[in-house]
Amino acid sequence: MKKQILESYKGVRDFYPEDQFVLDYIKETMSRACESFGFEKYNASVLEPAELYESKTSEEIVNEQTYIFEDRGGRKVVLRPEMTPTVARMVAKRRRELGFPLRLYSIPNVFRYERPQKGRLREHWQLNADIFGADNKNYELELLLLAHKIMLDFGAKEEDFVIKINSRKVLEDLFDKLNIPPLARASTLRLLDRKNKIGKEEFDESLLHILGNETEEFKEHLASLEDSGELQEFKESLAKLGVKNVQIDSSIVRGFDYYTGLVFEVYDTNPENPRALFGGGRYDKLMESLGQEPIKTVGFGMGDVSLREFLELRNLVPKYKAATELAILILEERDSLIQKAFELAALLRRQDINVAINFSFAKLDKQIKNSKKLNIPFALLLGEKELESGRYTLKNLQNSDTVELTEDEIASYIFESEIM
Amino acid sequence: MKKQILESYKGVRDFYPEDQFVLDYIKETMSRACESFGFEKYNASVLEPAELYESKTSEEIVNEQTYIFEDRGGRKVVLRPEMTPTVARMVAKRRRELGFPLRLYSIPNVFRYERPQKGRLREHWQLNADIFGADNKNYELELLLLAHKIMLDFGAKEEDFVIKINSRKVLEDLFDKLNIPPLARASTLRLLDRKNKIGKEEFDESLLHILGNETEEFKEHLASLEDSGELQEFKESLAKLGVKNVQIDSSIVRGFDYYTGLVFEVYDTNPENPRALFGGGRYDKLMESLGQEPIKTVGFGMGDVSLREFLELRNLVPKYKAATELAILILEERDSLIQKAFELAALLRRQDINVAINFSFAKLDKQIKNSKKLNIPFALLLGEKELESGRYTLKNLQNSDTVELTEDEIASYIFESEIM
Repeated sequence: MKKQILESYKGVRDFYPEDQFVLDYIKETMSRACESFGFEKYNASVLEPAELYESKTSEEIVNEQTYIFEDRGGRKVVLRPEMTPTVARMVAKRRRELGFPLRLYSIPNVFRYERPQKGRLREHWQLNADIFGADNKNYELELLLLAHKIMLDFGAKEEDFVIKINSRKVLEDLFDKLNIPPLARASTLRLLDRKNKIGKEEFDESLLHILGNETEEFKEHLASLEDSGELQEFKESLAKLGVKNVQIDSSIVRGFDYYTGLVFEVYDTNPENPRALFGGGRYDKLMESLGQEPIKTVGFGMGDVSLREFLELRNLVPKYKAATELAILILEERDSLIQKAFELAALLRRQDINVAINFSFAKLDKQIKNSKKLNIPFALLLGEKELESGRYTLKNLQNSDTVELTEDEIASYIFESEIM
Repeated sequence: MKKQILESYKGVRDFYPEDQFVLDYIKETMSRACESFGFEKYNASVLEPAELYESKTSEEIVNEQTYIFEDRGGRKVVLRPEMTPTVARMVAKRRRELGFPLRLYSIPNVFRYERPQKGRLREHWQLNADIFGADNKNYELELLLLAHKIMLDFGAKEEDFVIKINSRKVLEDLFDKLNIPPLARASTLRLLDRKNKIGKEEFDESLLHILGNETEEFKEHLASLEDSGELQEFKESLAKLGVKNVQIDSSIVRGFDYYTGLVFEVYDTNPENPRALFGGGRYDKLMESLGQEPIKTVGFGMGDVSLREFLELRNLVPKYKAATELAILILEERDSLIQKAFELAALLRRQDINVAINFSFAKLDKQIKNSKKLNIPFALLLGEKELESGRYTLKNLQNSDTVELTEDEIASYIFESEIM
């Protein structure tokens, strides 16, 4: 009982400083890339009225994975499972005041009630980058350029990942041509979405079950889709812009019903990690699903969990560095030393050094051990001798080197040190 | 119905880019100050198991203000109403691996179900800065130095706010001396907490009701508490460290039961905004309330809502600046211009300019109007003439000045411009 209370809620994470450091690195890398492409940051509450999702038709949302509850006033509230309905709501509400094309990004936490497993948690952080008013394919090119740029900014090489593209429009045209009714279309899309996860036999069998007589003709057309002019042309345009790791793949469909054109998913090329890292596409039907006037939109979402796994597999996660650069260790409990510690800390903080004072007055060994546990790179020893002489021992806690400095030399020494 | 869906859940906020800009400014200012004092950042999920709060005794939490619900697996889950139990849980769990004194900060969103009103929302963001292993009063001095520093970093002057201090220990000693039983102590603390909000008459009447015969003696002692040696000495130590806007105030008690020593609250000195902006103190009983071995701790919490009101009253909120620095406006829909726009954007992004390309091919006036709506400071015009001559018109969208530049001159011109 007493021990249990120390654990977080199941399927979510505690972020100790080392974990927060990695999450912040991920968020900042995403933010910088998005902002360089002209995206502006927004956010909203994790709480949304349930009606926002009820108007949508996607089956993945209106199901047992949603966190939904009644507040004390009897209102149905949802912990947002994705950010897209939220941003659509916000844009629709202020469409007159906002300027288009409108590029927006956010890195919200989103929630799904599911059995915790590798790469699938109940809460994760997810970059959402969307362009509203994206009324031609140049915005799709830009979106994939950005996705590609983010991967390179994380240190990935082009051969580490592949961008698989497809078009929901081309698929819909094929459905039209074969006169496939709506329900069978939806089932076929879901089956295609699972194609890479199930065997060929199961795929063929299920397809036959859905499409009956049309199965063979559908399969023939599907195979030739990958040579379709539109997607080939798009792939060539991307290559011209420097994005060469692109594959046309007719099994890429994305789960949500609001997609209408280009869809894409980014896959790790490591065969040990065969899952999609992230994806997106064009979803011109999004506003309609909220009962609003349409706005042409492209966007993608990129979660922190599968990204982090990708980075770990390739040793691309940066090593933890504490924000604190210097610990002041007081050697005796004396008022004069305490006062001097406060003064030195204030002086160094004005010079942009992050300083933690250790007021434990413990033995030096213990203070050093604790500073090392905190990953602080330098320690300044402060005793009567130092106070009188005005010369301080600065100890590098990684290699135990020491150097004697006056108080005015400390900041520049730390800045110039190789560790920084 | 269709309109209603555009609204957020009641009592929470949407953060459009201008709002996010202010929140980020607040968070970054808090973060920088905390890190300069050697605090490291942590976070956790907004979801916590309900047992974490049930073990505590504070009445303010176990009441109708908590968001609590059952998940689909029958577990009781709380949307964290405050961060303190979470950080206590995290520290207790890893106390052997962590180094002390341990300075931790976080700026989480926290939730309370309450009637939305000025400065009281259902979700707000709250800096939490805590020092674990804070076993003497130097940590209390440091904590108040940090609180003071944050206010100055936001541009406040010392006369804009006052730090009111008191000691729960001095109050407990007084209760002991007068033999006041536990229930009456709790009631007296709650009454003191409300002293500044209610009239003198109501205060006197309620106190008489609680303490009966001891009332007069209690009041006499209370009045003299403000001259108590301990608090006076503390105030003088702060003055020596440069913190001069401190008042001893025996009505400062803080809501939570886990406080044990120094308590403080920071008040706006503007009589139109008489509420406490934030506060904290020493809470050595925190770990015990979780059934854990004690750790001496000091800390404070500072919410974004009342802080923002304080900043607005004093014109200290910075003006919104878009992250995007340049819009490339394409004058005609031609492949050569589109390709050049992508190339120019890539070139400028490599030089750290944030660039949004407008692919609408709308009339120039309309493109400029939309860029202004987006608060983008510069626009680059790209037509056939520019492509041929290699000279581009850069337009300052705030004052309509234009200048002709080659592509290599654009980045440095923007960097050097006064707007940046």
